[in-house]
Amino acid sequence: MATKLTQDELKKMVGYKAVDDHVKSGMVVGLGTGSTAYFAVERVGQKLASGELTDIVAIPTSIRTKEQAESLNIPLVTLDTHSRLDVAIDGADLVDPALNLVKGGGGALFREKIVEASADKFIVIVDQSKIVDALGPAFPLPIECLPFCIEHTMRNLEALPAMQGAKAVLRRGSSANNQVDGEEIAISDNQCYLVDMHFDEPIKDPVALADQINKVVGTVEHGLFVGMTTSVIIAGEDGITVKDA
Amino acid sequence: MATKLTQDELKKMVGYKAVDDHVKSGMVVGLGTGSTAYFAVERVGQKLASGELTDIVAIPTSIRTKEQAESLNIPLVTLDTHSRLDVAIDGADLVDPALNLVKGGGGALFREKIVEASADKFIVIVDQSKIVDALGPAFPLPIECLPFCIEHTMRNLEALPAMQGAKAVLRRGSSANNQVDGEEIAISDNQCYLVDMHFDEPIKDPVALADQINKVVGTVEHGLFVGMTTSVIIAGEDGITVKDA
Repeated sequence: MATKLTQDELKKMVGYKAVDDHVKSGMVVGLGTGSTAYFAVERVGQKLASGELTDIVAIPTSIRTKEQAESLNIPLVTLDTHSRLDVAIDGADLVDPALNLVKGGGGALFREKIVEASADKFIVIVDQSKIVDALGPAFPLPIECLPFCIEHTMRNLEALPAMQGAKAVLRRGSSANNQVDGEEIAISDNQCYLVDMHFDEPIKDPVALADQINKVVGTVEHGLFVGMTTSVIIAGEDGITVKDA
Repeated sequence: MATKLTQDELKKMVGYKAVDDHVKSGMVVGLGTGSTAYFAVERVGQKLASGELTDIVAIPTSIRTKEQAESLNIPLVTLDTHSRLDVAIDGADLVDPALNLVKGGGGALFREKIVEASADKFIVIVDQSKIVDALGPAFPLPIECLPFCIEHTMRNLEALPAMQGAKAVLRRGSSANNQVDGEEIAISDNQCYLVDMHFDEPIKDPVALADQINKVVGTVEHGLFVGMTTSVIIAGEDGITVKDA
C-alpha cells in the first residue's frame, strides 16, 4: 500500500497534470500564482528545456511568478501584445460545485483575473481541502478597492443584498500578500486596498453577488471568479480527480 | 425685450436655482465640479454667510471644489463620516431624454459618482447645449482604468457588444483634467488612466453598456450615470426649464 502523499506531493501531481493535459507547443499560456501553480510553472520550464514543448509564450499573474518563469527561461509576453491566451492554469482558495471560485488570499487577484478572463481554457488546480459545498465561511472573499473613502465603500459592500451581512475587514500587513495583522494597511500591485469579506453563512448566489460588487463605486475587482472555470483538477488522498464545467 | 444672456449668466441662473430649490438648513450636500457647479457652490456660501442657511455640511467632488468651498467657509465632511447625502448638485457633459448622463470630461468622474450615488436627490444643472436625443457622438465617454495592460483593456472595451464599435483613446495631457494632447499619459486622482470612448453613432442602450463596462477587468469607473438623476435644471435662451425623472 502506498505511503500517504505529502501536501507538496499532491500539489505537484495536479500542477504537472494540468500542464501535461492542456499545454501544447505553440500556445500562449497564463501562469498562476501560489504554492500549487508553482509546480505548473516548474513543469512548463522542464518541458521547454527538454524540447518536449516548443514555441510557448507565457503571461505571468504576479511578480513572483514572473521571476520563477524567468529563472526557468520561459519566454514571457504581456496582454498588451497577446490579448488571447490558449490556456491559463492557477490555484484557488475555494471551489464550489458549479466550479465558481474564491481567489485572492494571496493578493494577486486582479492580475490573475485579467489574465484568466482572457484565456480560452482556464484550468484550476487544487487539493481536496479547497472543495466546498458553497463559497463563504471557509475563506474570506477579497475585494480590491480604491483607497478614497474606504470606510464608505466598506459600508456599501456590507449593505449589498447578496452579501448576507458579511463583515468587511481592511487587510493589514507589510504587503497585500500578507494577511498577518499589522499597523499598516496592505497595498496591492495597483496601489489599492484589499477588503476581506467574512461570511457567517454560505453565499447563496455568487453570480448575483459578483454583479452587485461590480456596481459598487470604489471597487476595482473582486475574488469571485464565476463562470470562468473550464476544469478543476483535484488532488485527494485517493488520487487525482477532474471536474469539467 | 431682454438682452441675450451670456453663457456665464445662464450657468449662474441654474446653479443658484438648484440651491434655492433643493438645499435646506441641516442638510448634507454634495458639491459638484465644473463651471456650472461653481455657481451652486457660490450660492451655498452666500446663503451660509447671510444666515439664510444654517447647519449645512458639504462633501466636495474634487480638490478644486474643496478649495472653493473652503474659501467660502462652507463646513466640509467626507463620505467616511457621512455615508448618506440629502442632495448633490453637479453639471453634466450630456443629458439624454431618460436623464441618463455622460460625465467626466473634467476627469473627476470617480469622486463625482461615489458622492452622487450616495445622495437621496441628485440635481443636474446644465445649459441647453448638453441636452441630446441620445448619448454618444456629441461627447466622448470617459472610462477610468488601471494602468496595468491598458492596451488590452482598451481592446476589451472596444469589443463590448453595447459599445457599437466606439474607438478608445487614451487621454494625454499634463493632468486628467486636461484633454489637450501631450506626450504624457494623464493621471487621475486615483493614479489611474482615463480612456475616452469616441462614438460614431448614438448609444442604443446606456444601461446595458454601463453593465458591460462594469464587468471588464481593468476598469475602475465610467462616466455613464444611469438611473441616478432626480431632476435636471436647464438654462436655455428662453429661460429655465426643469425635467424630473
